[in-house]
Amino acid sequence: MPRREAARLLRRLGPIAVQSPKRGMPHNQYESTNHAVNSYRRFHWIPSVQHPLCGPTSSGGIYEGQRSANKACEVQKRTFGSAATQFQRNPAYSVLNSDDIAYFKSILGENGVVQDEDRVAVANVDWMGKYRGASQLVLLPKTTTEVSKILSYCNTKRLAVVPQGGNTGLVGGSVPVFDEVIVGLAGMNKIISFDNVNGILTCEAGCVLENLSTFVENEGFIMPLDLGAKGSCHIGGNISTNAGGLRFIRYGSLHGNVLGLEVVLADGTILDMLTTLRKDNTGYDLKHLFIGSEGSLGVVTKISVLTPAKLSSTNVAFLSCNDYTSCQKLLLAARRSLGEILSAFEFMDHHCIDLAMQHLEGVQNPLPASPYKFYVLVETTGSDESSDKTKLEAFLLRSMEDGLVADGVIAQDISQASNFWRIREGISEASVKVGAVYKYDLSITVEKLYDIVEEMRCRLGDNAEVLGYGHLGDGNLHLNIVSSKYDDNILAQIEPFVYEWTSAQRGSISAEHGLGLMKAEKIHYSKSPEAVQLMASIKKLLDPKSILNPYKVLPQSVL
Amino acid sequence: MPRREAARLLRRLGPIAVQSPKRGMPHNQYESTNHAVNSYRRFHWIPSVQHPLCGPTSSGGIYEGQRSANKACEVQKRTFGSAATQFQRNPAYSVLNSDDIAYFKSILGENGVVQDEDRVAVANVDWMGKYRGASQLVLLPKTTTEVSKILSYCNTKRLAVVPQGGNTGLVGGSVPVFDEVIVGLAGMNKIISFDNVNGILTCEAGCVLENLSTFVENEGFIMPLDLGAKGSCHIGGNISTNAGGLRFIRYGSLHGNVLGLEVVLADGTILDMLTTLRKDNTGYDLKHLFIGSEGSLGVVTKISVLTPAKLSSTNVAFLSCNDYTSCQKLLLAARRSLGEILSAFEFMDHHCIDLAMQHLEGVQNPLPASPYKFYVLVETTGSDESSDKTKLEAFLLRSMEDGLVADGVIAQDISQASNFWRIREGISEASVKVGAVYKYDLSITVEKLYDIVEEMRCRLGDNAEVLGYGHLGDGNLHLNIVSSKYDDNILAQIEPFVYEWTSAQRGSISAEHGLGLMKAEKIHYSKSPEAVQLMASIKKLLDPKSILNPYKVLPQSVL
Repeated sequence: MPRREAARLLRRLGPIAVQSPKRGMPHNQYESTNHAVNSYRRFHWIPSVQHPLCGPTSSGGIYEGQRSANKACEVQKRTFGSAATQFQRNPAYSVLNSDDIAYFKSILGENGVVQDEDRVAVANVDWMGKYRGASQLVLLPKTTTEVSKILSYCNTKRLAVVPQGGNTGLVGGSVPVFDEVIVGLAGMNKIISFDNVNGILTCEAGCVLENLSTFVENEGFIMPLDLGAKGSCHIGGNISTNAGGLRFIRYGSLHGNVLGLEVVLADGTILDMLTTLRKDNTGYDLKHLFIGSEGSLGVVTKISVLTPAKLSSTNVAFLSCNDYTSCQKLLLAARRSLGEILSAFEFMDHHCIDLAMQHLEGVQNPLPASPYKFYVLVETTGSDESSDKTKLEAFLLRSMEDGLVADGVIAQDISQASNFWRIREGISEASVKVGAVYKYDLSITVEKLYDIVEEMRCRLGDNAEVLGYGHLGDGNLHLNIVSSKYDDNILAQIEPFVYEWTSAQRGSISAEHGLGLMKAEKIHYSKSPEAVQLMASIKKLLDPKSILNPYKVLPQSVL
Repeated sequence: MPRREAARLLRRLGPIAVQSPKRGMPHNQYESTNHAVNSYRRFHWIPSVQHPLCGPTSSGGIYEGQRSANKACEVQKRTFGSAATQFQRNPAYSVLNSDDIAYFKSILGENGVVQDEDRVAVANVDWMGKYRGASQLVLLPKTTTEVSKILSYCNTKRLAVVPQGGNTGLVGGSVPVFDEVIVGLAGMNKIISFDNVNGILTCEAGCVLENLSTFVENEGFIMPLDLGAKGSCHIGGNISTNAGGLRFIRYGSLHGNVLGLEVVLADGTILDMLTTLRKDNTGYDLKHLFIGSEGSLGVVTKISVLTPAKLSSTNVAFLSCNDYTSCQKLLLAARRSLGEILSAFEFMDHHCIDLAMQHLEGVQNPLPASPYKFYVLVETTGSDESSDKTKLEAFLLRSMEDGLVADGVIAQDISQASNFWRIREGISEASVKVGAVYKYDLSITVEKLYDIVEEMRCRLGDNAEVLGYGHLGDGNLHLNIVSSKYDDNILAQIEPFVYEWTSAQRGSISAEHGLGLMKAEKIHYSKSPEAVQLMASIKKLLDPKSILNPYKVLPQSVL
């Protein structure tokens, strides 16, 4: 494309009318929040599940059948997805009795022991309404010592336990499978300290991510992670699931950002690893065992985390490419030219965009309707508004001249930037509106990442719509398969094919969602038998009576 | 300081004559190498210890007494430092016999089994000449299968083993204590693959860091770590010691950058965790157990690591501050104003500078001799020469106006930049020239970091010179205490005070050097009893016969 034409295209964007979704929508609503890095508003998905601490839920549909939770101790039928595997309750676990309740009341007081059916039912169900347990008890400790006493008692009595944070997980990891005691961390929500020279935050595990974000932003820093669920998820849950999210490409994994943890082990031992040091090579770095182990090795109670300095300038561009190869080359060019200011590189195929335009209210495609196959959202964050913008424009101009970008626009104001992000973040919401969604979260090398989308499209033909989008910069594909209603035949076409294909590419069947209940039995697609065996040995070492988050993460056969 | 005066000061630097040290100096030489990020030359310390693979050493002094290595199976007397602790050889370990040798020859061939006294002696001594073992055998496997066969055999026979990379460690972790079999990884030095879209390098553990640097630089990337010892150290050793180094402030810890590992366990099991995925949340992330465990849990044989894109522009400034508070405020200001381009923030007190000027050949202080108490080296690395330079100049101007910086210069060419770095990196070399050096590597919160230097100075009075310098941006102090000759009384004044003081601040007694033999018994100063106990349980789980790198990392009492 000639330089003049490229420059004309880049600049032609006028104001786009964006209708912000309203606060307080009953379900699947987007709440507009201040985006942490920049000053424009970005939309975050807020699950409608209320925490049991807040009293009975007032919302409707997804809790139907909640009263039956106490009746049958069996895994509820899943609507769809891999969680159809049935387990038997492990008879080695004790059944809760009145002595247990009396003990818990003696350490937590009346308010810390929740037996009210409605409130317990809320904690029994994940926010998608997909996984439902039958616990009769939620405990709400307020201190590490209380968590320690709870676990010590449960370990002695062999009562199974589910640690629960914001309950925003996607794989059934944060709700009971049968009658496990739920230990909710919402009462442990204090910020302990903030070192504003080094940007080191120390806080309790039950702090809501968004509250932490707001706090550190006021100090001139940002949290190293940002998620759609930030309005509900807890930092303890983020760490236990090794949450990825939107800042991963820039700030990397929690394994690099978490400095210290305090964890309570199954037997009640308090493991103090709560340093605030950037460097510490004294012995094995045990905290990493608890990052991403989904509450199955210990309950995270306190955290110290490195927060990067908040930078003043953010720019967002929305681009189209004619083929997947161009998307890849564009990513490489972005890494080279934007280097240190690149903060997001998200891609969507045109099926995603079509669906978003059809189902998302108040959203419009900033590019003219043309037969583009792929769309890319590029964000930069830096400390100098004018030089960052110049750099981004030069990069895009060059990419257009080189034919990598077919068309593109740079947001001229906050409203336009929000609209670009709304398209990317709204794909999941739009796909739910069609009917049933079969969701997969895969890590695959960038070169091969789109092959599975095309192969799946061939397999399924007209039976379902296949959407490919995700964090291209991290090699993380969100593969969503959408059909008007749930169909076992479609599932059989998808699984185990999708896992086998990913395994053959040495990919991961769970890039960021974890295994939970949904994929515990599928771990062998991504991990070697020797590695799974060692995981099982470590589980047995740390939790010999297997009271912590049973039936999840690891296959039952190795435990 | 008025703006005009500040601007005048910043620009006044003319060319400085820098005399580059010559290649091929016999000991403590600096070899000039291409610095990875930028095009100027930086000097790296190259230990003169030759690897046993290369045949007998030709260098002199430090090997005196090497022939006696086989005579007595006891810990050699240390010249100084904490390693004076004496151990008894664990009698449970077998003594090497001719059947063992025959077996090793059957799997490795004649060339893979080194018994030549001179060559074995080289591998028995660390590069400082401070730790010396009495092994009779060096094995040089070339494949993972060979490593597996070696360990499986040694585990069955209960022969103790020391894995050895480039042998550049500072705490006696890479040489035998008694007659352990040395397993050298130098023969496993192949680059396996490089993904030049995502910058992911996969290679064998015996690759020399500098060779990897050169390789990825040719592809437009850099290694996420850079060390003085890069010309000798192996990537496998870097991972096993969780090496920090000069790029830590920018790219963070290896826990964030290593994507996958292949490790051979004590019983010969090959643990394949060699993915090249940025995200993978399938089960416990076991690789972190082996990062920083100093070869005591397994032998790292292959690595995949994320390499950042190489950026084109580097600037270096050399500044002085009147007090330590100004250094801290300057760090905060640098994080804010330089943000994404800040790549080093190193500090030195004036004692360091005086010593460097006195003992380093061809080095001069770019600032006029004035009674400044502290010096700071700031480096930026970015993708745009002119905007980076503008940003750095604006930051320095503001810092001078605010009185944080007393005086300062920005390097105008490669030679000046090299001179600045030479001062910082030459402190260690300069202090060795005085006589005995008592070296400590501490992590302390930035606010308190210089207090220990001042307290130590008070304690020691005229008996020794106390130097404080290090990676201020990472809260990492290198505390060097220098006296004309080794003196037990001085050591008694330093230890255990330095450890107790650091412990009271919740600091780390080993920020980046590890524990090795030197500090294995000191771990309780930085880790809780519960944490040490869990480390011991993990050691017993992975290496029940304790054949891997015995006497190191953990105290004997817990094993």
